[in-house]
Amino acid sequence: MGLPKDSGISLTARYEKGRSNLIIDVPGVSVGHVAISNGNDINTGVTAILPHTGDIFHEKLLAGVDIINGFGKSVGLMQIDVLGTIETPIIMTNTLSVGDAMAALTKYMVSTNGDIALTTSTVNPVVTECSDFLLSDIRGFHVKEEHVVQAIEKAMEAGGADFEEGAVGSGLGMVCMGLKGGIGSASRILSFDGREHTLGVVTMTNFGEPGRLVAGGDPIGARVPDDKYVRVQPQGLEGDKGSVIMVIATDIPLSDRQLKRVARRSAAALGRVGSYLGHNSGDIAVAFSTANRIQHYNDPQIANINILGEEHIEQVFDATVETVEEAIISSMYHARTLTGRDGVTIYSLREFL
Amino acid sequence: MGLPKDSGISLTARYEKGRSNLIIDVPGVSVGHVAISNGNDINTGVTAILPHTGDIFHEKLLAGVDIINGFGKSVGLMQIDVLGTIETPIIMTNTLSVGDAMAALTKYMVSTNGDIALTTSTVNPVVTECSDFLLSDIRGFHVKEEHVVQAIEKAMEAGGADFEEGAVGSGLGMVCMGLKGGIGSASRILSFDGREHTLGVVTMTNFGEPGRLVAGGDPIGARVPDDKYVRVQPQGLEGDKGSVIMVIATDIPLSDRQLKRVARRSAAALGRVGSYLGHNSGDIAVAFSTANRIQHYNDPQIANINILGEEHIEQVFDATVETVEEAIISSMYHARTLTGRDGVTIYSLREFL
Amino acid sequence: MGLPKDSGISLTARYEKGRSNLIIDVPGVSVGHVAISNGNDINTGVTAILPHTGDIFHEKLLAGVDIINGFGKSVGLMQIDVLGTIETPIIMTNTLSVGDAMAALTKYMVSTNGDIALTTSTVNPVVTECSDFLLSDIRGFHVKEEHVVQAIEKAMEAGGADFEEGAVGSGLGMVCMGLKGGIGSASRILSFDGREHTLGVVTMTNFGEPGRLVAGGDPIGARVPDDKYVRVQPQGLEGDKGSVIMVIATDIPLSDRQLKRVARRSAAALGRVGSYLGHNSGDIAVAFSTANRIQHYNDPQIANINILGEEHIEQVFDATVETVEEAIISSMYHARTLTGRDGVTIYSLREFL
Amino acid sequence: MGLPKDSGISLTARYEKGRSNLIIDVPGVSVGHVAISNGNDINTGVTAILPHTGDIFHEKLLAGVDIINGFGKSVGLMQIDVLGTIETPIIMTNTLSVGDAMAALTKYMVSTNGDIALTTSTVNPVVTECSDFLLSDIRGFHVKEEHVVQAIEKAMEAGGADFEEGAVGSGLGMVCMGLKGGIGSASRILSFDGREHTLGVVTMTNFGEPGRLVAGGDPIGARVPDDKYVRVQPQGLEGDKGSVIMVIATDIPLSDRQLKRVARRSAAALGRVGSYLGHNSGDIAVAFSTANRIQHYNDPQIANINILGEEHIEQVFDATVETVEEAIISSMYHARTLTGRDGVTIYSLREFL
Repeated sequence: MGLPKDSGISLTARYEKGRSNLIIDVPGVSVGHVAISNGNDINTGVTAILPHTGDIFHEKLLAGVDIINGFGKSVGLMQIDVLGTIETPIIMTNTLSVGDAMAALTKYMVSTNGDIALTTSTVNPVVTECSDFLLSDIRGFHVKEEHVVQAIEKAMEAGGADFEEGAVGSGLGMVCMGLKGGIGSASRILSFDGREHTLGVVTMTNFGEPGRLVAGGDPIGARVPDDKYVRVQPQGLEGDKGSVIMVIATDIPLSDRQLKRVARRSAAALGRVGSYLGHNSGDIAVAFSTANRIQHYNDPQIANINILGEEHIEQVFDATVETVEEAIISSMYHARTLTGRDGVTIYSLREFL
Repeated sequence: MGLPKDSGISLTARYEKGRSNLIIDVPGVSVGHVAISNGNDINTGVTAILPHTGDIFHEKLLAGVDIINGFGKSVGLMQIDVLGTIETPIIMTNTLSVGDAMAALTKYMVSTNGDIALTTSTVNPVVTECSDFLLSDIRGFHVKEEHVVQAIEKAMEAGGADFEEGAVGSGLGMVCMGLKGGIGSASRILSFDGREHTLGVVTMTNFGEPGRLVAGGDPIGARVPDDKYVRVQPQGLEGDKGSVIMVIATDIPLSDRQLKRVARRSAAALGRVGSYLGHNSGDIAVAFSTANRIQHYNDPQIANINILGEEHIEQVFDATVETVEEAIISSMYHARTLTGRDGVTIYSLREFL
Repeated sequence: MGLPKDSGISLTARYEKGRSNLIIDVPGVSVGHVAISNGNDINTGVTAILPHTGDIFHEKLLAGVDIINGFGKSVGLMQIDVLGTIETPIIMTNTLSVGDAMAALTKYMVSTNGDIALTTSTVNPVVTECSDFLLSDIRGFHVKEEHVVQAIEKAMEAGGADFEEGAVGSGLGMVCMGLKGGIGSASRILSFDGREHTLGVVTMTNFGEPGRLVAGGDPIGARVPDDKYVRVQPQGLEGDKGSVIMVIATDIPLSDRQLKRVARRSAAALGRVGSYLGHNSGDIAVAFSTANRIQHYNDPQIANINILGEEHIEQVFDATVETVEEAIISSMYHARTLTGRDGVTIYSLREFL
Repeated sequence: MGLPKDSGISLTARYEKGRSNLIIDVPGVSVGHVAISNGNDINTGVTAILPHTGDIFHEKLLAGVDIINGFGKSVGLMQIDVLGTIETPIIMTNTLSVGDAMAALTKYMVSTNGDIALTTSTVNPVVTECSDFLLSDIRGFHVKEEHVVQAIEKAMEAGGADFEEGAVGSGLGMVCMGLKGGIGSASRILSFDGREHTLGVVTMTNFGEPGRLVAGGDPIGARVPDDKYVRVQPQGLEGDKGSVIMVIATDIPLSDRQLKRVARRSAAALGRVGSYLGHNSGDIAVAFSTANRIQHYNDPQIANINILGEEHIEQVFDATVETVEEAIISSMYHARTLTGRDGVTIYSLREFL
């Protein structure tokens, strides 16, 4: 979906959008949401992104990460950085539930792979997070093992089908630039050697200072009436609070180093939409390529992979910034107004378009 | 304790040893163990290291990490790297239980700090790991929330008292250089401006290739009869398998950057004892200083801290390598022979001295 | 100077501007330019930034760097990163002249400090660069030792006086977003514990894709007639070519780690002005604080320094992005149209306001 | 050559040595030395390592670096880290001459490649260094442009022929562990998929504390009479002073990330020989693979490369540590006793075997 043409927001799109304008336009990528809500003070959830729906542990993908700002609790990034591969689904959830989600993902991987930590090495679960404390009883630890498994299973069943954006899955309780945040996605088409490739993004948006939103150069956040913002003033939470997770998928054959470079470009997208990369924020980008499958058991010992020539990465960078920007704005466009914990109401951007 | 004088192993000690020759010689540091065993195929546990026994979340310590090799699942290191502080106990456990231990530590911190994720920011739990799969049913997920809480409480109660080394706590099921590994510790005294300071280390040892152990220049591992080694041959586990965690504490006033430099020196200690920094290993060092307490709520806005002049860090580096080396050898010296999962027996180094 | 009120460009300024709106508003900081031109195909130069005008080798300043993109040849950044201090002036020049400028700066430091590499350690010269090949005969190596010394001496003599922006010093031959780039500067005032502090920036701008310039949300670059852009098409030079150097000075007492975080925020400013952090670019930020002088000879061994509480860094980040943004736009505003090598004309932004 | 069998020093060699036991056993790698000496107080030089003797700018090699300690002035490492390739010879020289050598290498590359900075991008010269101030008048800047060009031309002419070790080329004035250091080399054979590959190392050794040398577990440095060591006592130079450069070449098809991992392993070799990774030292490792040539002009846009399966990197790590260790000891074995600046005599290790 991404941002519809009639949204009232005008973003530059120099690259052709993918069929669904979602990360699932990258063949093999799949997304599943589980929202956890009691209609009152619990507004959290889990979103699972499958880099491919096959046997991801034994057929890993090349991956890279960039820690734009590390006030965050995401796990699994260190091993991606050193080994250059991703070998599990990517789970998104709330900050305090990372441990529970990591335990759940570990158990899921162990139960579905009989060799892990028995006849072969251990597994590196990837769990990312933002804090939904404003709208949700985050101290209640409402994410359970079954929610993680359900999100993965939903993604498996979806098999690359379209998924919802906005206040869904792990995005249910998120707040971005003082307005309702959540899950957003977009995709773009690029061509190399005469063949079309796709780059897609999913963001979980929970960052930024109220009033600062800029969409396509328009400082729209400044036009929102001040009393529509919940300004959080306890120390450590004012300013550019929160976090943002940006997952970038592509079938362009990029190396792990190139994917790390791609991940880093998302910082420019944050600059475009009005962030100054706030202190109290886990701004994390993870990029992976579906083009080369890296076998867990290496036989023959030397494998052959395809890699994009470095000079041609320029347009991948440009398209990444554009796609992350749209995914961020799209997360806000699709997220509906929500009243949560302590009766706090966070308004949808759409109310001010 | 560290390595006793009559151990039969001769390590160089250029610096005076601390009173107990343990990390707890650094004032305020405390350690607690919980072993989890059924006397058969369960041989795992939890070790908790308290940087200080006060209110660590609100009075953080400066800290630095070095990821010598990142085939590992430790959590909390990213935020230490970016923010330069540690704000929770350090938990050690087995690889697959990191998620459960992270969840337990998160809940412990939330339950003991009413402001976390409510009126102030979230908390960064630090959990480190090695894989005890050879001796323990690691796929059974035997570490529960209560074990983590017990380990912290034991450390609290110990209040800096001596603690056991060897096959204890999280070290129960560890294997090092083909022999029994576990928990080791040592400490050294250094003087600056005429005042004594202490540097102490705890290691959890689970690394290295059978036969490769070198102790004080003596290739002792090569003298162990070959049939006393369990050589693990499935792909991904031969060679310099496993991991090693090195926690370095000091009351020398070091900055977070200096502590990162100190952490990095532990790689030289690994070289001394016969490691080549194997692929399939999470070799992680975490260093913290108790000299400056960093207030969570900053008032006044500008604080005053003490920092060692950079030139004088030379002897800290030297002492770090020496102390980590002794802590590693001490972990092996103290670890008794153990028969675990599938009847596998891992022999104690002491049987060959 | 920065961007004057009547410039026709409207940038957000949430923080009060410094007296001169230049980096020299940070007490002690000084800037000197030497342009090298034959009025035809030689358009290059040297700009020197003195972190303070005293004995910088023996009284170092805390510093941090961020390598936003490392397609660049700047030198001295590695040691800043590991030791956390800067101990020489910062020289800016063209890409191919970095070696000559490094040699010149090394000789200058050695000649003015009798102990370097004789009775004490060596010195870490810092030289940064962008490629002015479009307007200048960069392959002619026109920067000589005397130009570097002159730039330092001019800065010494200036003693913190105002300096020119635009196509001056090392900025003479630079091209930014397809228009004339060069040297820009700006400054902001922040208060901590009731006392005013200053943050100032100097940029050397030579990055970005023609047509992409955004100033205060206005996509002004798209309004420039296409035939006013020199589009460079040989492989490796199309797209977001070039480099940008951002030097951030402040008298806020920041640690080296905090300065590294500040440096990183400049990526958001690049995003704001229309960059996607192009491949073929050395995007480098260096930040230093004049608040603590770090003695080369450490006696006593433990020193006392002031450090800003981490939570209060939020507004430093915000002000950094705003100041870097203005310095970039200011470099373009002040840079006049120039015809250089091969008769290529690069137009001033001011012609299109 | 490396360490001959009858050297009196016994190092473990688990891997077969290459034909010459030098880095030039890696097909295509070539080395050239230029010593600069007046037989008195000038004892410096230049060593050039050619990753291949073809057109290295247009046919780059994958490369990785590890900054084990960054008190150093080597240049070109940042771009290797970000782009993953090396595109010039590697120059070794003294610390204060890096600028001059960088200028010389830049000019050499520009003069031999007409497209650099004219119709294509700029070039990233790689220059590494150690300080030979103890034996040489380093403040006299005796390395000139012609020495760098001569060293490259000698390497070209050598075309992979054997080269001398010890006090030769840039190693002429180096001091290691209080004894004479210099240039050392060694190589090993490894097999993958039934085909032999070679890994070779060149070191420039100038690190370590007098008395600390350990060779094959033997603390040989402690046996050298104390009056044979020149102990340097001015502040900043006592302790584990100096630097060490380790260049690792191989024809095993490793990715840039894998080469970075290989480079990092050299820290274990430093630990083996008695270093504690001293503060005042630039400990730098650069690794490259000749297996894949990366075209500067990418056509087609997507290229195909061979990469070793990650699990099989284990023996590459093991062989790297062993080869770096031998190269270090070999540099000292071959270096003759030298009397230099101020009549200082630095003794050869060989005098104490």
